[in-house]
Amino acid sequence: MRILGIDPGSRTTGFGVIDVVGQNRIYVASGCIKTQGGPLPERIKIILDGIAEIIRTYQPDESAVEQVFVNVNPAATLMLGQARGAAVAALVLANLPVADYTALQVKQAVVGNGHADKEQVGLMVQRHLRLSGVPQADAADALGVALTHAQHSGGIAKKLMEYQLSMKRGRMA
Amino acid sequence: MRILGIDPGSRTTGFGVIDVVGQNRIYVASGCIKTQGGPLPERIKIILDGIAEIIRTYQPDESAVEQVFVNVNPAATLMLGQARGAAVAALVLANLPVADYTALQVKQAVVGNGHADKEQVGLMVQRHLRLSGVPQADAADALGVALTHAQHSGGIAKKLMEYQLSMKRGRMA
Repeated sequence: MRILGIDPGSRTTGFGVIDVVGQNRIYVASGCIKTQGGPLPERIKIILDGIAEIIRTYQPDESAVEQVFVNVNPAATLMLGQARGAAVAALVLANLPVADYTALQVKQAVVGNGHADKEQVGLMVQRHLRLSGVPQADAADALGVALTHAQHSGGIAKKLMEYQLSMKRGRMA
Repeated sequence: MRILGIDPGSRTTGFGVIDVVGQNRIYVASGCIKTQGGPLPERIKIILDGIAEIIRTYQPDESAVEQVFVNVNPAATLMLGQARGAAVAALVLANLPVADYTALQVKQAVVGNGHADKEQVGLMVQRHLRLSGVPQADAADALGVALTHAQHSGGIAKKLMEYQLSMKRGRMA
């Protein structure tokens, strides 16, 4: 399964693509879409085109978006929401399933500690994906949300298997 | 010229379509897209599909979006931003020019008073468009932003004409 993780921001939208093969997580690509400056419709077009291009290139099966939530001021929050709305729009337009994770969930999944800082997330993303260096902040967060989705969806599949096994055992007993 | 006005909201996105023929503004259509409940990607899909359908049906030449800004709490502001981002995405995807107006600009243009309340906006929209009744709140606001764009773009054209006239006079003097 190939997962596209997105870390939306008002100035930069990070992306990270990973493959999940059994228990292995393999790095495919990461980077960021810069949207700084310019009127809102232009910035939204850059996000839509950028994500569409990433989807065309890497053909992910599922997607996950971080619920970034930096409450600096209402105007910044509105701007962030707009970028996030445009990012989710691009994913939905490509008919990708979209999962939602809070920053807390990402930190817990990647670092094992909901209060981890950005640097720790970057270092653990590097370790999980066996990268030669720490990826750029926005790309690291996007890879982090992709890793979180891999863990959560793996978790659900595992639970379902356990449930089916217990049902079988129930019938056999 | 046909203008599509959009009033984005986290639960309801209002729309209003008007024709501008010289000094006349003619009502074409209005209504709202309900997005209450359901996960974010579903709500964003409803906004994208709804606006795409309106554009297909009414074929507007330009669009205008209200900068709604109800600062109830950060979560509500983020949600509003997401709905607004999706609405602008739908307009941009249809290659429509998108203009931005604050609630203050809409009230000034429609009522002539930036501190007007919602009821006054509704009544003046009814009067400007010679409607038999006051449109529903979200639809009235969307028609209001379309009327604002008609006035502003008319204003720019008028200013350009005045400028050209003054240039002519300058040459003749």
